[in-house]
Amino acid sequence: MDVRTQFFTYGEDAESRLLLHDGSDFGPVTLAYETFGTLNPEKDNAVLVYHALSGSQHLAGTNPAVPGVGDRWDVSCRTGWWDDFVGPGKAVDTDKFYVICANYLGGCYGSTGPSSINPENGKPYGGDFPQIALADIVDSQLPLYDELGITTFHAAIGSSLGGMLALNFAARYPERVKRVIPVATGLASTTLTRVHNLEQILAIENDPNFCDGHYYDGPPPLRGLALARMISHKTFVSLHHMEARMTDRCEQEQDEFSWYKIRTPLESYILHQGRKFLRRFDANTYLQLLSAWTGFNLVRDMGCTDYREVFADCGHQEYLLFSIDSDCCFYPEEQELLRDELRGAGLKVDYVSVSSDKGHDSFLLEPELYTEPIKRMLEKENRRATPGSVLCAQAGLS
Amino acid sequence: MDVRTQFFTYGEDAESRLLLHDGSDFGPVTLAYETFGTLNPEKDNAVLVYHALSGSQHLAGTNPAVPGVGDRWDVSCRTGWWDDFVGPGKAVDTDKFYVICANYLGGCYGSTGPSSINPENGKPYGGDFPQIALADIVDSQLPLYDELGITTFHAAIGSSLGGMLALNFAARYPERVKRVIPVATGLASTTLTRVHNLEQILAIENDPNFCDGHYYDGPPPLRGLALARMISHKTFVSLHHMEARMTDRCEQEQDEFSWYKIRTPLESYILHQGRKFLRRFDANTYLQLLSAWTGFNLVRDMGCTDYREVFADCGHQEYLLFSIDSDCCFYPEEQELLRDELRGAGLKVDYVSVSSDKGHDSFLLEPELYTEPIKRMLEKENRRATPGSVLCAQAGLS
Repeated sequence: MDVRTQFFTYGEDAESRLLLHDGSDFGPVTLAYETFGTLNPEKDNAVLVYHALSGSQHLAGTNPAVPGVGDRWDVSCRTGWWDDFVGPGKAVDTDKFYVICANYLGGCYGSTGPSSINPENGKPYGGDFPQIALADIVDSQLPLYDELGITTFHAAIGSSLGGMLALNFAARYPERVKRVIPVATGLASTTLTRVHNLEQILAIENDPNFCDGHYYDGPPPLRGLALARMISHKTFVSLHHMEARMTDRCEQEQDEFSWYKIRTPLESYILHQGRKFLRRFDANTYLQLLSAWTGFNLVRDMGCTDYREVFADCGHQEYLLFSIDSDCCFYPEEQELLRDELRGAGLKVDYVSVSSDKGHDSFLLEPELYTEPIKRMLEKENRRATPGSVLCAQAGLS
Repeated sequence: MDVRTQFFTYGEDAESRLLLHDGSDFGPVTLAYETFGTLNPEKDNAVLVYHALSGSQHLAGTNPAVPGVGDRWDVSCRTGWWDDFVGPGKAVDTDKFYVICANYLGGCYGSTGPSSINPENGKPYGGDFPQIALADIVDSQLPLYDELGITTFHAAIGSSLGGMLALNFAARYPERVKRVIPVATGLASTTLTRVHNLEQILAIENDPNFCDGHYYDGPPPLRGLALARMISHKTFVSLHHMEARMTDRCEQEQDEFSWYKIRTPLESYILHQGRKFLRRFDANTYLQLLSAWTGFNLVRDMGCTDYREVFADCGHQEYLLFSIDSDCCFYPEEQELLRDELRGAGLKVDYVSVSSDKGHDSFLLEPELYTEPIKRMLEKENRRATPGSVLCAQAGLS
């Protein structure tokens, strides 16, 4: 399935600029997005997907290039990041649903971000790009939904960082979504996440090429970004599982270290993960998303006293949570807390604990563990809504 | 108690140079060490203590300065790092034992290390200092023991990195030690430790001031070392416990970040930990010890097939292990493995699981949790060895 990224721009005049969490406004905003399937005449079959930290608008199918993104759209970007989950007959069935995914404000795959040109001076924003919050990313997409004619989403789905965005959207705009599917995510950044994020931010800031974020005219802070990615990567995978399966390959690139000599395939593998990320990502975007993640706290952001208040208007929503038992990025304990807080707020919550040896990245790699519950959640009310489906259900055929 | 560091130098001629693990030799070697208590005429009351990653020879009492170390011997170095554990009547009773602790080969507190002058060219070794293994540190101290007249130690004690050295010494020189007390340590570097160490090594190597380790003529790689320390520090403490007790203090030094603004006391605290380490440690020494730690694997290093073989000649030794239930540097599971492997090798092993909310650093902070078992282990056979004690024991008075 060949897909092309589309673009939507707003905020070119003072009235339509985006209001940010700190009270300032920003514009213009271009969003790079993709859609799959067809919006039905009732406009009630739209499913919103939020991507993870290093993801993009390219959810499924093949997209050979995105205008303006250049070489950063490397071979690893071309197949949609959730291609096994989204398509005809898949977990998110594009024969039934109109699926939308947009690259985030602050992103580097076509949406307005630090590498975009600042119309005020004709140069890339770089370090002058506003420090955004996850709420800003959520808000930045609202004009796009209006443009596409979607008032209320059938469902919002997000994994990892995207799951926090789905929760933010559901809590702050309860009337705009009926079903919420947070996958391997949490209600607020944890202590350990904030520490890991700070390490990564410092790794990039320490790179002499960083230059306060104004590096687009010179060499980018590749060593800092590689180290940052290494620090995060260990939380995405199951290191023990991986090392157990590792071959003896042990490669060191010449310019990587001057003094240290790597000695194990594990070290070689971790370095490779850092290196390959450099080709496809922008350090300023990475900083923006880490900073927004660190600052995520729904209770505080919404000025509430607890989650009961946060989700006070969400009684009509249904939640399906996925937790991964080997997850070291969002630990199972965090998932249980999320489940308990949502249930404590009186919401209807289905909870699936996925048993996997793949760690956090299971949500990208093992569609067989997620498809049935997602299908069931997305399709059950739809069936009831159409007379034919109701008959099938009554006849026990569903 | 005022203490002064002493120095012992060997390896000034070809015959007495230190043979390193890779077959090369090295010298001269100066060791900075301190002793406490008095060696008895039988020379059988010596207790060896190995310090942790950033520790020194200064085990107990007050030492205002170490010749040649300069400002690095800052106020935090002046009180011995195990002052609550070593002294008259304490866990390691200096009224009974002759206690020795030496700064490591590769160190920065007076022993020969990267910041020492290379006699071949009159400049600091810097990046030319050999990449040492933990076995080299163990071997480098043997001439000192000979100099002090100690053939066999009553006990060897080590915590964290020092615990691995104690295990290495006990396994490779079984006739030279009777009791082994490894505290919060492990038998081999784990996957997660190797990943954390690689991150820290890269943090320092990425610093533009690192210059392949030859930075003593210019500004040192402080930003890289601070980031490295932040990465390790989170494994030494209980973050959750700490954040729960944190005040609202949130300070950012001007030169720390150019783009990011820290927002929480947690971030402020972590940065402070990185910063304060810079004053008292050398980046090259830090790299040496990380690298040696990463490479630690007794089975492989001794050319054995399993731990039964490693400890084959240790049947006369007694072991006392301490595990800390909140330890995130050497996890309790690792301690249990250590215990099981030692017992599997047929050794007599006492195992104490310390319940603490202080994490790995408990071994520095909570003498009350360690004193009794250490005292019991160190003093029990001594009593039997003297007629008076035997009588006491027989009378049920011990």
